[in-house]
Amino acid sequence: MARPRRKTDLPVSEIRRYLEPGPIVLVTSAHGDERNIMTMGWHTVMEFTPSLVGCIIAGGNHSFGLIRRSKECVINLPTTALTDQVVGVGNTSGVEIDKFEKFKLTPETAQHVKAPLIAECHASFECRLADGSLISKYNFFIFEVVKAHVAASPKHPQTLHYTGDGVFMTAGKVISRRSQFRPAML
Amino acid sequence: MARPRRKTDLPVSEIRRYLEPGPIVLVTSAHGDERNIMTMGWHTVMEFTPSLVGCIIAGGNHSFGLIRRSKECVINLPTTALTDQVVGVGNTSGVEIDKFEKFKLTPETAQHVKAPLIAECHASFECRLADGSLISKYNFFIFEVVKAHVAASPKHPQTLHYTGDGVFMTAGKVISRRSQFRPAML
Repeated sequence: MARPRRKTDLPVSEIRRYLEPGPIVLVTSAHGDERNIMTMGWHTVMEFTPSLVGCIIAGGNHSFGLIRRSKECVINLPTTALTDQVVGVGNTSGVEIDKFEKFKLTPETAQHVKAPLIAECHASFECRLADGSLISKYNFFIFEVVKAHVAASPKHPQTLHYTGDGVFMTAGKVISRRSQFRPAML
Repeated sequence: MARPRRKTDLPVSEIRRYLEPGPIVLVTSAHGDERNIMTMGWHTVMEFTPSLVGCIIAGGNHSFGLIRRSKECVINLPTTALTDQVVGVGNTSGVEIDKFEKFKLTPETAQHVKAPLIAECHASFECRLADGSLISKYNFFIFEVVKAHVAASPKHPQTLHYTGDGVFMTAGKVISRRSQFRPAML
């Protein structure tokens, strides 16, 4: 059972720690009196400062319209404690249901955007659309992360990594090679 | 010790199985009589068909010029057997050394591009530049995968996922929730 996590601020230039390993994420959105959650696996960090994240949001998703119109979203990081919720969110449509209610996820007020944070996630990154020039051709949104909330522990959360076909790889052992890095590469 | 892996073809529309989980990859390039290898952690699948991958290649990399001029590369998937090579490749410059020789990686001839495959990697994806419109603004390259070579086993390779600071998360347990997916979502 997943419970709300208490979070602290992380400098937005450091979100690569959580997104570069490639986890599936839950993207929340809001526009007018509608809100929604979608799963997303196609995303990449693009820059440290400004803190940019590029991602694909397919046009068929109810969230696509909410995000394109509001120009905002929150990228939330679930762990294996939320596996069933991740699968449920990915296999339902926000046209028909309120996914917060259906999957017992707790919306929290964000600081800079109207889209809600998901309290049970390990981290939440508030995003504003920075560049929409590739939306019409590729459904590719470039967001700037304007605020990052992260649970203090564990340091390496057990994230979910989607491989297709209903199968997830989960985060395994952590290994450090820090001593082999040139300082400029850290 | 990593050894060359025998590989078979994978339909290019299925490469998400390997890239969506977010592994660090080794990108090979060639132009004129130069060749190089770089590590890359900032990439995302963008489309199934055509098979598109977007990625950031920083302008300071020697590979940046080789790839921009040749409009080609190969995205190779290393596993934990190649951890030291991944770290070495990421902490050296192709201006000074030949990384294939230095790190004892075996170049193999690709089918559609001049950049070599790395024989010791679990998979290699031959890529042609599909859209360079965001290179100058973000160093963002959109490639089309034109050929995919994958080792037959293991089905779920132990990939490396970079978190920054010289620390990698490695692929852990695999869990299936296939029975909870709507057929259209698989």
